[in-house]
Amino acid sequence: MPTPVPVTVLGATGTVGQRFVERLAQHPWFRIERLAASGRSAGKRYRDATAWRLPSEAWGGLGDEVLVAAEPGKTVSPVVFSALDADVAAELEPAYARAGALVFSNASAFRMEADVPLLVPEVNPDHLDLLSAQRKLRGWSGGIVCNANCTATVLVMALAPLHKRFGVEAVMMASMQAISGAGYPGVASLDITANVIPYIPKEEEKIEEEVPKMLGLLDGARIAPAAMAVSASCHRVAVVEGHTEAVAVQLRGTPSLDLVRAAWLTWSPEPQRLKLPSAPLVPVRIHDVADRPQPRLDVERDGGMSVHVGRLRACAILGVKFALLGHNTQRGAAGGSVLNAELAHARGLIA
Amino acid sequence: MPTPVPVTVLGATGTVGQRFVERLAQHPWFRIERLAASGRSAGKRYRDATAWRLPSEAWGGLGDEVLVAAEPGKTVSPVVFSALDADVAAELEPAYARAGALVFSNASAFRMEADVPLLVPEVNPDHLDLLSAQRKLRGWSGGIVCNANCTATVLVMALAPLHKRFGVEAVMMASMQAISGAGYPGVASLDITANVIPYIPKEEEKIEEEVPKMLGLLDGARIAPAAMAVSASCHRVAVVEGHTEAVAVQLRGTPSLDLVRAAWLTWSPEPQRLKLPSAPLVPVRIHDVADRPQPRLDVERDGGMSVHVGRLRACAILGVKFALLGHNTQRGAAGGSVLNAELAHARGLIA
Amino acid sequence: MPTPVPVTVLGATGTVGQRFVERLAQHPWFRIERLAASGRSAGKRYRDATAWRLPSEAWGGLGDEVLVAAEPGKTVSPVVFSALDADVAAELEPAYARAGALVFSNASAFRMEADVPLLVPEVNPDHLDLLSAQRKLRGWSGGIVCNANCTATVLVMALAPLHKRFGVEAVMMASMQAISGAGYPGVASLDITANVIPYIPKEEEKIEEEVPKMLGLLDGARIAPAAMAVSASCHRVAVVEGHTEAVAVQLRGTPSLDLVRAAWLTWSPEPQRLKLPSAPLVPVRIHDVADRPQPRLDVERDGGMSVHVGRLRACAILGVKFALLGHNTQRGAAGGSVLNAELAHARGLIA
Amino acid sequence: MPTPVPVTVLGATGTVGQRFVERLAQHPWFRIERLAASGRSAGKRYRDATAWRLPSEAWGGLGDEVLVAAEPGKTVSPVVFSALDADVAAELEPAYARAGALVFSNASAFRMEADVPLLVPEVNPDHLDLLSAQRKLRGWSGGIVCNANCTATVLVMALAPLHKRFGVEAVMMASMQAISGAGYPGVASLDITANVIPYIPKEEEKIEEEVPKMLGLLDGARIAPAAMAVSASCHRVAVVEGHTEAVAVQLRGTPSLDLVRAAWLTWSPEPQRLKLPSAPLVPVRIHDVADRPQPRLDVERDGGMSVHVGRLRACAILGVKFALLGHNTQRGAAGGSVLNAELAHARGLIA
Repeated sequence: MPTPVPVTVLGATGTVGQRFVERLAQHPWFRIERLAASGRSAGKRYRDATAWRLPSEAWGGLGDEVLVAAEPGKTVSPVVFSALDADVAAELEPAYARAGALVFSNASAFRMEADVPLLVPEVNPDHLDLLSAQRKLRGWSGGIVCNANCTATVLVMALAPLHKRFGVEAVMMASMQAISGAGYPGVASLDITANVIPYIPKEEEKIEEEVPKMLGLLDGARIAPAAMAVSASCHRVAVVEGHTEAVAVQLRGTPSLDLVRAAWLTWSPEPQRLKLPSAPLVPVRIHDVADRPQPRLDVERDGGMSVHVGRLRACAILGVKFALLGHNTQRGAAGGSVLNAELAHARGLIA
Repeated sequence: MPTPVPVTVLGATGTVGQRFVERLAQHPWFRIERLAASGRSAGKRYRDATAWRLPSEAWGGLGDEVLVAAEPGKTVSPVVFSALDADVAAELEPAYARAGALVFSNASAFRMEADVPLLVPEVNPDHLDLLSAQRKLRGWSGGIVCNANCTATVLVMALAPLHKRFGVEAVMMASMQAISGAGYPGVASLDITANVIPYIPKEEEKIEEEVPKMLGLLDGARIAPAAMAVSASCHRVAVVEGHTEAVAVQLRGTPSLDLVRAAWLTWSPEPQRLKLPSAPLVPVRIHDVADRPQPRLDVERDGGMSVHVGRLRACAILGVKFALLGHNTQRGAAGGSVLNAELAHARGLIA
Repeated sequence: MPTPVPVTVLGATGTVGQRFVERLAQHPWFRIERLAASGRSAGKRYRDATAWRLPSEAWGGLGDEVLVAAEPGKTVSPVVFSALDADVAAELEPAYARAGALVFSNASAFRMEADVPLLVPEVNPDHLDLLSAQRKLRGWSGGIVCNANCTATVLVMALAPLHKRFGVEAVMMASMQAISGAGYPGVASLDITANVIPYIPKEEEKIEEEVPKMLGLLDGARIAPAAMAVSASCHRVAVVEGHTEAVAVQLRGTPSLDLVRAAWLTWSPEPQRLKLPSAPLVPVRIHDVADRPQPRLDVERDGGMSVHVGRLRACAILGVKFALLGHNTQRGAAGGSVLNAELAHARGLIA
Repeated sequence: MPTPVPVTVLGATGTVGQRFVERLAQHPWFRIERLAASGRSAGKRYRDATAWRLPSEAWGGLGDEVLVAAEPGKTVSPVVFSALDADVAAELEPAYARAGALVFSNASAFRMEADVPLLVPEVNPDHLDLLSAQRKLRGWSGGIVCNANCTATVLVMALAPLHKRFGVEAVMMASMQAISGAGYPGVASLDITANVIPYIPKEEEKIEEEVPKMLGLLDGARIAPAAMAVSASCHRVAVVEGHTEAVAVQLRGTPSLDLVRAAWLTWSPEPQRLKLPSAPLVPVRIHDVADRPQPRLDVERDGGMSVHVGRLRACAILGVKFALLGHNTQRGAAGGSVLNAELAHARGLIA
């Protein structure tokens, strides 16, 4: 068994940071070398700086680890996972990349940069090739690989095999998003208890621009976004984990529902063929019971890395409708970044 | 002040029945003459047969009223409000209509019958004229007037002024519906606590056929449904009262958002002009704060009889998007039926 | 009709401040003269500085009012309602009292001061007489009158008639408290959705010391606390408004449950006799249905100013047990302060 | 590795039945031989008769199993797990016991029978010896072993080491119970969303009689209940799994809180010493963070088989208070029965 790759987690005290630690504490390929946090927490033990808010073992068993400041020191881990807020990420992630680290980022800061891959390994593994252009352009020895907005990631998992097989022309999506997506303390309980909030700041814009980029074609040093109309309406609901999405799509050639179903069933993308450690056996699970998928019953399956499709049926306007569910802090955040790193490792991009 | 019209409430013990009693107990034009229930409850006092589940005064102050069986006796009240289940309504409502009562029904049994008005007084008051055809056709001295599915009613309130001004070509709607819409005991708490259910039996079909009928044109003894594509996706969420709807519409001539807004602002339909007792001052309230309307904060306004529009914005696919909220057991059920009866009364259709 | 007394609301932008504005906007005896807020909000219009989070009319109709800084100026309103945080209250409330205002405070800063009345008009109206000692001692022309912690207030409403009739020797109480009690943003939704938090900082201590003070005897310039053991266990639950309390009491002479019930039924305290505008007709409502009172169904009754008792039954340890419910932001906060001011006004203490 | 013991699950389609199947599908000592259900479901495949409502693998992988009728046939499994309702259990459990099966029952029907052990293996393993008296008395070759009410089971786990070390004189307990405790459909969502129900039928009585029996002494053919006063107040809250209990105890000799803590820490009961497969490593987990234990974060630990204590502190009335949490459908239901069977097996009571 080869030596595990040392990694650093940036922003280890927050909600997504905790998910990173939880996943990486037991990872077969990676080993946590440093937990990094803001200056306020650096120097403290992880257990003292962090109210662990996951049902799993507190602090991933690393409660005694001393937090370091989130800034590249003399040496950096070859792999860095970033759970930083966008504004901090904008400054620190390039510093790590310059210092030689390959940064797998959950932040939105660089997602739409032309030379930064917005990667979902099942969807656009070849976008990873942007890295060499990025390195040349920016003069970095490391690099930045982003994963997308959580809602966009779940959506693109369901769209990818349809786009590949038929071509997606238009997507209308209304989301019902879990509170964990807003971090901690995040959504005030007075706002969401027995309520729906019909607005999540900047969310619809992110989805509408990230999905076409992810489904776009690598064109030298940039991605040509897919030509499709995307329209999103985002809502917060009183769910702990799991974004539900009501999706309607217009596909080229108006294929039958059976063909749509077959496109999902026969999809066998690269992470599954490579058997990457965090790749779910089946990337898109299809439910035939009328009232599924449901967050509480389905979202934790496959470690939260598969997405769930149900209620496939005809749409009077766009042709095809279905219900979609995915895990926002696993597939849509920490798990997505880790899978990105696994793909990079499998492709020999990590020293 | 004229003598109030005596009315009977059918199905007075259920959730919608309680809403009827609550509204009618203090109504300026109507006076509850009989509370009717299934054979199991008939003969009991209202307080003994009914676990009152509304925050208002228990049993509308009529707890000592003795329930009668839900079947027309020798005499019937001139006005009957029906909160019966569809299968029972299918049998009993015609019996009352035959016996001379004007039945205002919340049940789905007769909604799509060609000669039965599916009435929302702000939207299609002229559909009430179907009654004369209905009476002739069926040989009734009374009649049946239906209100629509709760989700469809809320939707059509927002669409009506747009349809009148521009013409609606297509409507895509994803709902987040309150648990009260399923009656009592209705949705099991294990199914909805911290969860979303992406399916409500028969709901999408009802919306897709009822909206075009309500927006259709009276054509002699029938309604010619409006030519528009309607596509609905219905979800149950952990909200007590109030259906939220994410709506996208395609309007003829692609008017600007300002014109759309103006269509709502200047809408002045018949119930408001007639100042019917249950008509809200403003039928469509427009919210400018980004995160409104919200069920918990907005739905009880105007006694639950107005609908709320927010987040008016462009849609990349259909042109116009907005968030919509309405009260499912008031505007969408009991309040809607009562307003229907008020319109009929104002038009002299009640003896 | 006499001229209404001008009042100032301190902390008008917060949760309790909004409740004050809501109640006072229509009060028959008081008229809002100034809305005061922290320096950050002063100078802004109320509508621009405040996200209104109550289902009632936004900003109590005073959205265009310009907020002033929370500090006594050249002139002060004769009556000031304080919804300040404890640390700010500690500084500002004495300043207002010195300047001549009678401050009715919802803050905890002065509750346990020997010369400050901890007033619930139904329970200890005579404690208001402490004011003259307070003025003499502190050299103030105004004064400070506190209301108690919300959970303690609800509890003492139920205990007072029992203490008066029999004497309370011991009280064990476990609370299930609404999220609104923590203000806004207050409790994070991730902490309370489908969860219970078995701890509320400083809450149990407050209850255990405030209840004996409120039930104590005025003894010259101080209150001799009632000799009783109070033991509280406080929990946060996913309820919007209304604290539920499981109460067990040991009464002197171990009276029968019928006598306990009679003590509540026959209680006719001063605010009800004086018909103060905010006094509920019946201060303690008794429920006979087994599963009541419930927050969602009962707490808004009487404008949230009555408390609700149910499930009166024997306790194997202390003798008597019952379920108790009261409105934490009405009776337990803003409504309580307003009722205190009404009592002071009725007693001629307000110029 | 020895041949696993064949077992039957009675009531396999219900909430607790599903928990049985989930646990037994992978059990090292037991193998599901038959899944039994009411006549309505018998003959159907498990997948067709059962809406699986757990987040785990649907139907425990046994979806194709054909359900048999819940009645002893020519042969019975040596071990039977009963998730029947009390009234059906009253009839069927003796029939199985007569036919030779050892029935481990989650039903309340026989719990308080003098010759039936009310077993929690950590608490009263010797009560299992009642079986020989039971067999003699009733002429059965099998027998019935009950587990207690879920709330009582959680409570007695925390009390047992205190009772053993000091003697419990009085226990006051207020519960906040999960909706899963009422089965499916169980609690209506309209009753519990953003609400508390201060009543659970028959629950308080069960706790008050079952706890003293479980802590009692085996005295020949019966149990002499422990001499202690138990007073319970039970509430339903919007939690999915996990009963929270606010507990106050009076202990003989009024030991210090440190001694109480030590009693839990040093407790090493029989299932842990025997390393029974379902026994948690640590039966009582102590939390030192002020706001723990919490259902959402703690209840699934150890497969739901440990109980959680937090907030150990002084009580002004009974001496000691603490917060308690346990898993109602695992430790308090299916897991408890399975652990009972494991103890019986370890003691050689299963053929």
